[in-house]
Amino acid sequence: MPLSAPPALPAAPPDIEIMTIGDELLYGQVIDTNSAFMGQELGKIGLRVRQISSVSDRADEIVAALDQARARAQVVLMTGGLGPTKDDLTKHVLARYFGSELVLHEPTLAHVEDIFRRFNRPMLDVNRQQAMVPANCEVLHNAVGTAPGMWFEHQGTVFVSMPGVPFEMKRLMTDHVLPRLQTRFALAPIEHLVVMTCGLGESFLAEKIADWETALPPNVKLAYLPGLGSVRLRLTATADGRPDLPGRLRALLPALHERIGEHIFAETDTPLEAAIGQLLRAKNLTVGTAESCTGGYLAQKLTSIPGASAYFRGSIVAYHNDIKISQLGVNPETLAQHGAVSEATVREMAAGARVRLGCDVAVATSGVAGPGGGSAAKPVGTVCIAYADAHKTVSKQYCLDRGRQNNIEFATQQVLDLLRRNLPE
Amino acid sequence: MPLSAPPALPAAPPDIEIMTIGDELLYGQVIDTNSAFMGQELGKIGLRVRQISSVSDRADEIVAALDQARARAQVVLMTGGLGPTKDDLTKHVLARYFGSELVLHEPTLAHVEDIFRRFNRPMLDVNRQQAMVPANCEVLHNAVGTAPGMWFEHQGTVFVSMPGVPFEMKRLMTDHVLPRLQTRFALAPIEHLVVMTCGLGESFLAEKIADWETALPPNVKLAYLPGLGSVRLRLTATADGRPDLPGRLRALLPALHERIGEHIFAETDTPLEAAIGQLLRAKNLTVGTAESCTGGYLAQKLTSIPGASAYFRGSIVAYHNDIKISQLGVNPETLAQHGAVSEATVREMAAGARVRLGCDVAVATSGVAGPGGGSAAKPVGTVCIAYADAHKTVSKQYCLDRGRQNNIEFATQQVLDLLRRNLPE
Repeated sequence: MPLSAPPALPAAPPDIEIMTIGDELLYGQVIDTNSAFMGQELGKIGLRVRQISSVSDRADEIVAALDQARARAQVVLMTGGLGPTKDDLTKHVLARYFGSELVLHEPTLAHVEDIFRRFNRPMLDVNRQQAMVPANCEVLHNAVGTAPGMWFEHQGTVFVSMPGVPFEMKRLMTDHVLPRLQTRFALAPIEHLVVMTCGLGESFLAEKIADWETALPPNVKLAYLPGLGSVRLRLTATADGRPDLPGRLRALLPALHERIGEHIFAETDTPLEAAIGQLLRAKNLTVGTAESCTGGYLAQKLTSIPGASAYFRGSIVAYHNDIKISQLGVNPETLAQHGAVSEATVREMAAGARVRLGCDVAVATSGVAGPGGGSAAKPVGTVCIAYADAHKTVSKQYCLDRGRQNNIEFATQQVLDLLRRNLPE
Repeated sequence: MPLSAPPALPAAPPDIEIMTIGDELLYGQVIDTNSAFMGQELGKIGLRVRQISSVSDRADEIVAALDQARARAQVVLMTGGLGPTKDDLTKHVLARYFGSELVLHEPTLAHVEDIFRRFNRPMLDVNRQQAMVPANCEVLHNAVGTAPGMWFEHQGTVFVSMPGVPFEMKRLMTDHVLPRLQTRFALAPIEHLVVMTCGLGESFLAEKIADWETALPPNVKLAYLPGLGSVRLRLTATADGRPDLPGRLRALLPALHERIGEHIFAETDTPLEAAIGQLLRAKNLTVGTAESCTGGYLAQKLTSIPGASAYFRGSIVAYHNDIKISQLGVNPETLAQHGAVSEATVREMAAGARVRLGCDVAVATSGVAGPGGGSAAKPVGTVCIAYADAHKTVSKQYCLDRGRQNNIEFATQQVLDLLRRNLPE
């Protein structure tokens, strides 16, 4: 079947359907994270996802889902079912669905051969099959894998097939699918700006910036994306016919800073621990941690950033009180008088870590993560955090039980924010 | 509309459709983890999920999806859209869909009032609305939230609506939906047995137990569920008319132990760090860790288990070499001669941690997590791990680059397994 002529451009942006293919999704062996990534990225270029469907590896069920998807949406994005094994049916089903047949795509074969050569592995016939594609598709080069993406246009609907491996799908979306959708549907350019905040809940934040939000230009929309202990603010601007959209978006920020400046830790989509890493590098400071209730999670967060060894010296996880005394130099009398979960103890932990680990600044945590270990005076969820540098020590106490894992994550987020706010100039 | 009479029981188990409702899923702001949980739990009672659909909060789109779902499946399980805000439409749509109307459910109102009383919060009219349900449903009590579950039977199809909050959905599934499906469709009892292994990849494991797998009774199926550094083996037995199915399933295990006993760490679905916690408690031993490349992740794993303070003493995260010397007593000459990433260094780290943290046994890690820091002799992905107790020290070196975060997780899994295998009797 020849490629049908491209239809006239629709006036409104097209609706999108996402179809993820694979029995492993229906069995619950794999959580579908691909759809969320695609939904986010499509939203950034102004496209709405109409429905997400996860279907089995059975040909008849894939065909039924395709029929329904094309009735709902003008673009159907598929992932999965492109592997070399016999339960991977997607491209066979698509060839039959479009009345086409599989043909060898020479550039893909060369690419697959090159991959096997580089890894010095013998290439089997099933691997060669990866270069067979329906005759009526445009091949989308998969720079990071052997299964190519495929772009079809059929009776006014765009169908795209991508591998289900998340990093391959992401690469194809970024390299090919998103730019092509923008061109194909002549989408108005969209600009995004993400502002990261912590220390204020969503509703308090909204109250503080209500006047600023109300005064936003009509082509700029604000979304609140809350996480545990932080809120991302996403500004989305659509073209308004005037020049320098990015510049005008950034020009909105000073007024935001006037209202919530102390809570803003980045003007790009980045986690708090990465923003702290940049601050420490810029200030040429080293950091260490002393942890009780967070049990290593705080150190793990800080070291999850590549290159953290430039500023992170180490951590002493002092779960047992003996270790707080022997390794951090906490005074036994402080422990006896105030308890392990107290501002007094956690201040000594931070100060001790700074000296013992030989770092410029240190932070510390102690708390009752739960479910056991609580008391009337120190219920589950009580968390004390402290910051220490050469000139000052700062501490805080919280109490909010959200379950063990959330208590640990919340304490870690709070102490990272304490660190950020107190770093010397 | 009155409840339709229950239809005759189908001969085969019914197909299930999962429908998750909410714009946040389509925008990619929330990853749908509910479907995977439901797929797993339904699989355990022998039910197949035919399709998963995620749809918007728009009434017309929910209705269209319901029409399609009932054409595919005999049971439609819905989550989401049951909150108190005005974009939560599910029960209004369902009432209209079934030609029913919302009525007050007194026991639910009493339950909601009780929850507000306990949290000492004022109750608003929107909260009272949570107790309004379609007249034709059976209410499923939500022990952990204000939005009840709802069970409908309509023209031979079962529709169930549950809240989208994962822990509320899980509780409703476990308390009500799964047992009711078993009864309603007279499902044959199914027994499961999970065996946790680590230290052998899926294909090597399959080879070692091939004869055992072949000899399994016809009513017993084996599934391999691989994770990073571990493989879960799930045995599923369907009723065969003979007594004591659970006992006969367990009787298969001694022959499995003969083949791969050293790799088995639990005969129930449990993570390695929990199994180690049980071993340490049973042997009355304490543990500590010394970490370089894992940066606190190892300590965090061990302390993620409630009650870990009974056996976990602490950790020294020695990211900088100075800390390896000052806090763990590593010999500077060892570092100079062999480097930080070496079996010689990591053995001294483990031995040092044991003494400094005052624990019976200790484990240590050092490696090049990447992406930077590699060399020809020690490429990215090189990891050294060690175990030390009063009588012996054991170490290993690996090299396998899977990206920074996976390198850290893999190293942690390996060192936990080293700990498990070397604990004294």
